[in-house]
Amino acid sequence: MKLILDAFGGDNCPGAIIDGIKLAEKDFSDIEYIVTGDKKIIEGYIVSKGYSFKNLEIVDAPDVITCDDVPTVAIRSKKDSSLVVALDMLKKDETIDALISTGSTGAILTGGFLKIGRIKGVSRPALCPALPTKKGTNVLLIDCGANADCKPINLCHFAMMGSIYYKELYGAENPRVALLNNGTEDSKGNELVKNTFPLLKKLPINFVGNIEARDALSGDYDVLVCDGFTGNVFLKATEGAVSLVMGEIKGAFKSSLKAKIGAMFSLKAFKKVKDKLDYNKYGGSPFIGCSKTIIKSHGSSKAETIYATIAQAYKYQSAKINEKISEGINNLPTFEDLSDD
Amino acid sequence: MKLILDAFGGDNCPGAIIDGIKLAEKDFSDIEYIVTGDKKIIEGYIVSKGYSFKNLEIVDAPDVITCDDVPTVAIRSKKDSSLVVALDMLKKDETIDALISTGSTGAILTGGFLKIGRIKGVSRPALCPALPTKKGTNVLLIDCGANADCKPINLCHFAMMGSIYYKELYGAENPRVALLNNGTEDSKGNELVKNTFPLLKKLPINFVGNIEARDALSGDYDVLVCDGFTGNVFLKATEGAVSLVMGEIKGAFKSSLKAKIGAMFSLKAFKKVKDKLDYNKYGGSPFIGCSKTIIKSHGSSKAETIYATIAQAYKYQSAKINEKISEGINNLPTFEDLSDD
Repeated sequence: MKLILDAFGGDNCPGAIIDGIKLAEKDFSDIEYIVTGDKKIIEGYIVSKGYSFKNLEIVDAPDVITCDDVPTVAIRSKKDSSLVVALDMLKKDETIDALISTGSTGAILTGGFLKIGRIKGVSRPALCPALPTKKGTNVLLIDCGANADCKPINLCHFAMMGSIYYKELYGAENPRVALLNNGTEDSKGNELVKNTFPLLKKLPINFVGNIEARDALSGDYDVLVCDGFTGNVFLKATEGAVSLVMGEIKGAFKSSLKAKIGAMFSLKAFKKVKDKLDYNKYGGSPFIGCSKTIIKSHGSSKAETIYATIAQAYKYQSAKINEKISEGINNLPTFEDLSDD
Repeated sequence: MKLILDAFGGDNCPGAIIDGIKLAEKDFSDIEYIVTGDKKIIEGYIVSKGYSFKNLEIVDAPDVITCDDVPTVAIRSKKDSSLVVALDMLKKDETIDALISTGSTGAILTGGFLKIGRIKGVSRPALCPALPTKKGTNVLLIDCGANADCKPINLCHFAMMGSIYYKELYGAENPRVALLNNGTEDSKGNELVKNTFPLLKKLPINFVGNIEARDALSGDYDVLVCDGFTGNVFLKATEGAVSLVMGEIKGAFKSSLKAKIGAMFSLKAFKKVKDKLDYNKYGGSPFIGCSKTIIKSHGSSKAETIYATIAQAYKYQSAKINEKISEGINNLPTFEDLSDD
């Protein structure tokens, strides 16, 4: 298996990428690694750490796409950037299986869409992170930001792709697929959701109906389907609320002598809670439905995150997710009342 | 001032309503209270508590609308329900200023819309709760669920109404109004948000631009504008995440002897955090833009919540919010490119 990693664009680059590969090398000795980015900086980092790699190729790409760049412009104009060089290689070289990047989400999605393209039959690729739940399981959120405006057919494809991915990722026979809504009754929702509901019932998936955002992380569902705008608001609202509560608790621990003593005793238990809720630990978000595997890892990824993302890419390829999605989507019944134009 | 309270429909009814009025009677002695509901049960409760009221009228309405009822059907068919009787009295009796209910949100919104109607010029009334922020201030979320599908003109009216309400409620000169989006750049968003953005810039409000859901509770914004579907997902995602973190912390406190000792010392500080994050304590959500004041208080409201909601209704009326909204909306510049048909 051959993996290409964009070594720049994230907060801890290129260190986190190189350290992550070093960690992964032991467990995934059959992966050939390619990294793109400023060769001098990467080589300097490797020397400074005293690393030697069995299977690492460095491809020079001195430019970097930042979060301040306009994605559509950057993908076209920054031809020597670590991301564009990686995307071009992924596209041209059939032996490269997957790409990992910690860079600008917008640029990765735009680049993936324009340069790599969709699996035939998939109306829209979607960003699909795994989130922690109350029960300690994970739930997939699809789409979490690639498509701000969607049609029912897109949500049907998200449901299919999410179900197939969850099944392979966690070995579940019948992933419970739910539609994110403003109420649980069948008739609830905005126009998009109301029109999607009856279609999801016809798909060869375990569609369990509408759920409210409040119950999304209960652990009673495996795949949450929504448009990318709603998914983005859901994910970031969750992040914001977790940060708000954690901040309040930090404050509470400092609010009295008694609480300070309490803090000393509970610190370790709290660190565990914080870790459990940090969904970036589980790896990255695949841009699912692209014709080649692209995984966006968080901008603040550390070596451990990159290790987890490499493991995720390995599983994604080994399980042949893309082939199974192609098969699943292209065997769907035709909905006369649906079209994506 | 005359206030009508639907005494049934919530979890702790009619006790919470009657106890709440009892609490409020001291501080708001110039309010005349009317309650609707099963007269025998209400009178029985009052006798059992040994209460006497100076200014309380009980109107018999033996039926109750529950959350299992279909709102549009229930509002039309349950003519003797506590909510419908209250709405009918609010509509017909000009001396009644406002209505408070802890019942089904859907029924309150449907009833408010069908029986009471909009302030002239307001394209859509909206549900507008106040949420706690990191800085200890409050932020208004408008719309949080009344309108699942919106047009730019609706969001413009939400922005105007939210700004006017915030100004009067918290005495702020220039409330910072933000558009809830999937990114902060001006060009971000789905079609609705992208079309709304340039219009908000033309309104006589302090529009500060797009914000992401992650920053919505930072305390840097006073009014968050969005369609009701997105607002509902945002609010419930926040509730779900707070509940998830609190549950994890509860678990962490039990995870070791050390943590258990920590818990004993920190319990009081934690109770404070939980209280601060419970936005129901601040009162209810006005159905803002209705031609008469309607406030939905949480289904699990206790006497203290009802007290806070009565105080809120009092302020709403005293500050003449409805008149100011009418004035604000009807003095808006005309947008040729906007219509609400």
